[in-house]
Amino acid sequence: MSKNEEAKNAGRRNFLRTSGVLGASGVLGATALAGCGSQNQDPPGTGSGTGTGTGSGTGGTPPETAPAGLNPHVEPGQLDEYYGFWSGGQSGEIRILGVPSMRELKRIPVFNRESATGHGATDWTKQVMGGMHVGDTHHVHLSYNDGTYDGRYIYVNDKANARLARVRCDVMEMDAMVEIPNSQGTHGIFPQRHRTGLVFCNSEFQIPTPNDGSVLDDPTQYYGLHTAVDGETMEVRWQVKVPGNMDLAATDYQGNYSFATCYNSERGVHLEEMMSAERDWLYVFNLAEIQRAVDAGQTIRIGSSPVPVVDATADTNPFVMRIPVAKSPHGVNIDPTGHYAVVAGKLSPTGTVVDITKIADAFAGRIEPRECVVAEPELGLGPLHTAFDGRGNAYTSIFIDSNITKWNIENAIRAHAGEQVEYIVNRCDVQYQVGHTNASMSETREADGRWLIALCKFSKDRFLNVGPHKPENDQLIDISGETMRLVHDGPTFSEPHDCVVVRADLIHPTSIQNREAARFRLYEQWAQEDGINLLEDSRIIRKGPQDVRIYMTSRAPNFALTEIPGIKTGDRVQIICTNQDDVEDLSHGFCLSRHDVCMVVNPRDTNSITFTAGAPGVYWYYCPWFCHALHLEMRGRFFVEPR
Amino acid sequence: MSKNEEAKNAGRRNFLRTSGVLGASGVLGATALAGCGSQNQDPPGTGSGTGTGTGSGTGGTPPETAPAGLNPHVEPGQLDEYYGFWSGGQSGEIRILGVPSMRELKRIPVFNRESATGHGATDWTKQVMGGMHVGDTHHVHLSYNDGTYDGRYIYVNDKANARLARVRCDVMEMDAMVEIPNSQGTHGIFPQRHRTGLVFCNSEFQIPTPNDGSVLDDPTQYYGLHTAVDGETMEVRWQVKVPGNMDLAATDYQGNYSFATCYNSERGVHLEEMMSAERDWLYVFNLAEIQRAVDAGQTIRIGSSPVPVVDATADTNPFVMRIPVAKSPHGVNIDPTGHYAVVAGKLSPTGTVVDITKIADAFAGRIEPRECVVAEPELGLGPLHTAFDGRGNAYTSIFIDSNITKWNIENAIRAHAGEQVEYIVNRCDVQYQVGHTNASMSETREADGRWLIALCKFSKDRFLNVGPHKPENDQLIDISGETMRLVHDGPTFSEPHDCVVVRADLIHPTSIQNREAARFRLYEQWAQEDGINLLEDSRIIRKGPQDVRIYMTSRAPNFALTEIPGIKTGDRVQIICTNQDDVEDLSHGFCLSRHDVCMVVNPRDTNSITFTAGAPGVYWYYCPWFCHALHLEMRGRFFVEPR
Repeated sequence: MSKNEEAKNAGRRNFLRTSGVLGASGVLGATALAGCGSQNQDPPGTGSGTGTGTGSGTGGTPPETAPAGLNPHVEPGQLDEYYGFWSGGQSGEIRILGVPSMRELKRIPVFNRESATGHGATDWTKQVMGGMHVGDTHHVHLSYNDGTYDGRYIYVNDKANARLARVRCDVMEMDAMVEIPNSQGTHGIFPQRHRTGLVFCNSEFQIPTPNDGSVLDDPTQYYGLHTAVDGETMEVRWQVKVPGNMDLAATDYQGNYSFATCYNSERGVHLEEMMSAERDWLYVFNLAEIQRAVDAGQTIRIGSSPVPVVDATADTNPFVMRIPVAKSPHGVNIDPTGHYAVVAGKLSPTGTVVDITKIADAFAGRIEPRECVVAEPELGLGPLHTAFDGRGNAYTSIFIDSNITKWNIENAIRAHAGEQVEYIVNRCDVQYQVGHTNASMSETREADGRWLIALCKFSKDRFLNVGPHKPENDQLIDISGETMRLVHDGPTFSEPHDCVVVRADLIHPTSIQNREAARFRLYEQWAQEDGINLLEDSRIIRKGPQDVRIYMTSRAPNFALTEIPGIKTGDRVQIICTNQDDVEDLSHGFCLSRHDVCMVVNPRDTNSITFTAGAPGVYWYYCPWFCHALHLEMRGRFFVEPR
Repeated sequence: MSKNEEAKNAGRRNFLRTSGVLGASGVLGATALAGCGSQNQDPPGTGSGTGTGTGSGTGGTPPETAPAGLNPHVEPGQLDEYYGFWSGGQSGEIRILGVPSMRELKRIPVFNRESATGHGATDWTKQVMGGMHVGDTHHVHLSYNDGTYDGRYIYVNDKANARLARVRCDVMEMDAMVEIPNSQGTHGIFPQRHRTGLVFCNSEFQIPTPNDGSVLDDPTQYYGLHTAVDGETMEVRWQVKVPGNMDLAATDYQGNYSFATCYNSERGVHLEEMMSAERDWLYVFNLAEIQRAVDAGQTIRIGSSPVPVVDATADTNPFVMRIPVAKSPHGVNIDPTGHYAVVAGKLSPTGTVVDITKIADAFAGRIEPRECVVAEPELGLGPLHTAFDGRGNAYTSIFIDSNITKWNIENAIRAHAGEQVEYIVNRCDVQYQVGHTNASMSETREADGRWLIALCKFSKDRFLNVGPHKPENDQLIDISGETMRLVHDGPTFSEPHDCVVVRADLIHPTSIQNREAARFRLYEQWAQEDGINLLEDSRIIRKGPQDVRIYMTSRAPNFALTEIPGIKTGDRVQIICTNQDDVEDLSHGFCLSRHDVCMVVNPRDTNSITFTAGAPGVYWYYCPWFCHALHLEMRGRFFVEPR
């Protein structure tokens, strides 16, 4: 047995141990390294992370005085260089962070009920969200054109309720949400990179198709679905039915393929069954073949869903190729040249490098799927995700070892071909148990190799103790030099899974609401019904015995109506409020005392909410946004009479 | 007219202008100063803030190289020196920030529905919150002992729905919530400082008493209530009925008085009426007299509320003294010696200093209430709140001028007595429109004069543009030296109003759930009914034709139950989940596909949620917290059969 094989097997035996294994080879000896140094070169303590997690400082030289590093400190009034778009995990939101300051610049509520903005309670959001208040977001990706971000849309998954949502980047608000039919556990998503086209969604959980109760405990009848959503219309175009649990998604740069890791090729429903095979699959979806089948009507339907489904459950079929890869693969990431797909073998200490240019030959039967694999670098215990610096290096997050491992792709390929060449460049300990990692512009052809984020699942002692429920730790690493330099620990609320870091010049939001999002069609329809100019008029209209619609403008420090009379207890009251101020950052809102009603109305925005009038009495409504020196006095009375 | 009077009147004429006024005196010339310099001494650009808001940097010397300043940078792995407890504004939550890093370490959901934790949907929170999902928090204060924080509780108001809530500091979760009867707009709150005693709550809005619809548009019958809640039991002890709108609250250090600013002594219901009087009031509540009346039954009842109410609506009464203070007062803050109450006159350029030691004489009729006023410093346009450094200086936030004005209390008193002495020390421009300000330990006798937070309501161009809805800007200022030094811009989500900054050694949270919070009594009661040991047992119990209760433990990477059979569509299902892991930061959770159900279960915690089983089919539940290398495989099947 070779030294490398020994190490690999040691790794496999021990991957469930919570501390790293000191393997025989240097490759697995990561936990013995102190901080982020070139392998076997830097003495302990010269890096900026310790891995000991005593919370008593980093040891070594502080980042400011390190030679040739980037400066992570953004002084007051200075702007960040990058927008970081973070998934908000189980919070159901998206977050915008500035990078490198790692300051949270915005929460964008998406799948969640949010008290300040009224998201999930306002009329349009309630309608789109179907009254649901839970989301489990993992992956945020922006729309592309020609291999880089076009600054138009952000897409985000909801694993909890099987949905995909979209945020408009001009106003940074959710503008569309779609349910992924026939599926559960919408997990990996990825948009096409050649233009705003399809967004692919992997269902992680296999279920009966249809899942109508006719099949319950018969896992042989469970399947997963790879779904294509139109990134412009947000309509579900087609689905591909496959066996196994799909995890992460990716796309090539040409629009030929989408990818999904399949970590449960065994189709087990219990943990031990899912782990039995030594290799699982990278699925490659042949988009042209799928579209051809859809166009030709060679599809099935599942249950009552109208979406055409391509059946790709046969071991061999023209739609999906199964490339055997390292055990229980998790992440699949495409390098910025578009040449390679890097798959991380969660339950193997290795990654798998797939040469995308060989896939056409494999689909054509000229080579075996496995012949697309050009490298299987040994990376560490629990490799999960890979980022790129645009200089030929890959950075893989290693969960059990708790580090980021930098390795050279071409060297890994040469080593796989039998050359004696070291592909591991160095490692950077992170604190602790890193999940995703991503680097500035890493998912584009413009990867610039400046900043890397390590999204650590455990923070433990890295911050002041805040009780049993602790923050995650999203760490910032300077990757501009040969040696990685940990420069910032960033606590985040439950539990961002992934982020993308986007050059600031690619995003162009407006400060005044442009009134172009879908919800304005709803307001305009009501206004037309009632002969109202939303930006000018205020009027109380009784629409029925128990229905009142109220249009009201606001301009700091006044609501156009300071009294709302004529309401009867039990009335269904709709408030449609428009902010006339066109001053940047001058938001108003509407909050009604003791009615559980609050919403924001941004500059030149309209928002609406419907509620039931409470018991008879006087109820003050007020502007909850500090808008003026007399903001506190900006209020009115809502009179509720007995019915 | 003296120069000072000229300046004051100029200020009053112009306070509604959005840019500062360049008054005749230096006192009002703040906007002409560049950055934070000693008045008329530092040349422009030597401070660390510019006030121009171009977003292009601060000019001047960066903080790192400034002489004798504190270092705001907390390196990776280092801990912050202070816990900052932030109100979460309309988000309804509390936030914990580390100071000086200004990193958000935790969100504590309080009045809001929160997707990740399940707050507002789990059984206990739903019961306590009455199904409401909106909160408008303004003020967070911790429980005290002997004039400093005892590290036990955090109290927070909800202005939207008139509530007070409490968070336990051992586990940093909400453990009690109480509705303030007969009132609307619960705004200022403050706990007693001599020991954990009463927490006082001001109702900002005047309403009919009772507010049952029998009185609607008759403002002469509207009143406010000053409410005392027992800080231990969270029961409402008594209320005092007064005219006018009350705003901020404070307490002395001895337990004799509570304070409330009253900005609408006119009792107007429209903006112009509220602004007509040149002076409004500081209310001083005589706690001994109020308690005597309550004990003697000299109280009234309002509506169906059982709470005893002391009627203090008469112009003169033994319960409440009205000290005339600068127009429309906003903040009232007690200096760390306990000697002075500083009231900021929102619509006057002045503050009012009240000597608390004279109040007993005024209550006794030996002096007039107005004789308690010992200084009326001219501070700037729109003074709002005041913090202290423990060295005799006060720092008042000036809304319209957008600065923090540092002034010396004793010098202001000497100037008021006729001495020619300058009391303004210097000013620091902030960006922009500052509301609250607070300093490290400022609300205790241990004020240490190190860090000051300026909670700015507008951020405008200080951060990358994130659309019409922008963050606030909570700025960090080093006040350790003579000159204030702005060192950090901190973006925050809508719209923190206030914060307190607490020395880290005073707070001692646990990392493993101690199972002492009120909600555990509920779980234990169910477990006892069903003969269950929560920490050990897993069982599916049908409680009725449509009711199922499920106890389930979890230990990474497994749920004790991987199948939940026997559920019928429409069943009311309760999941009571206990996390057996006692490993720090090892949270589990329970999320059920397509059921809008998600909750966290922290180490050794129990949590429970009730929902209705959906259409027949197989639904996967999973652990949404990344707990283990095999976390993704931690799941089970929930089988729903037709009824």
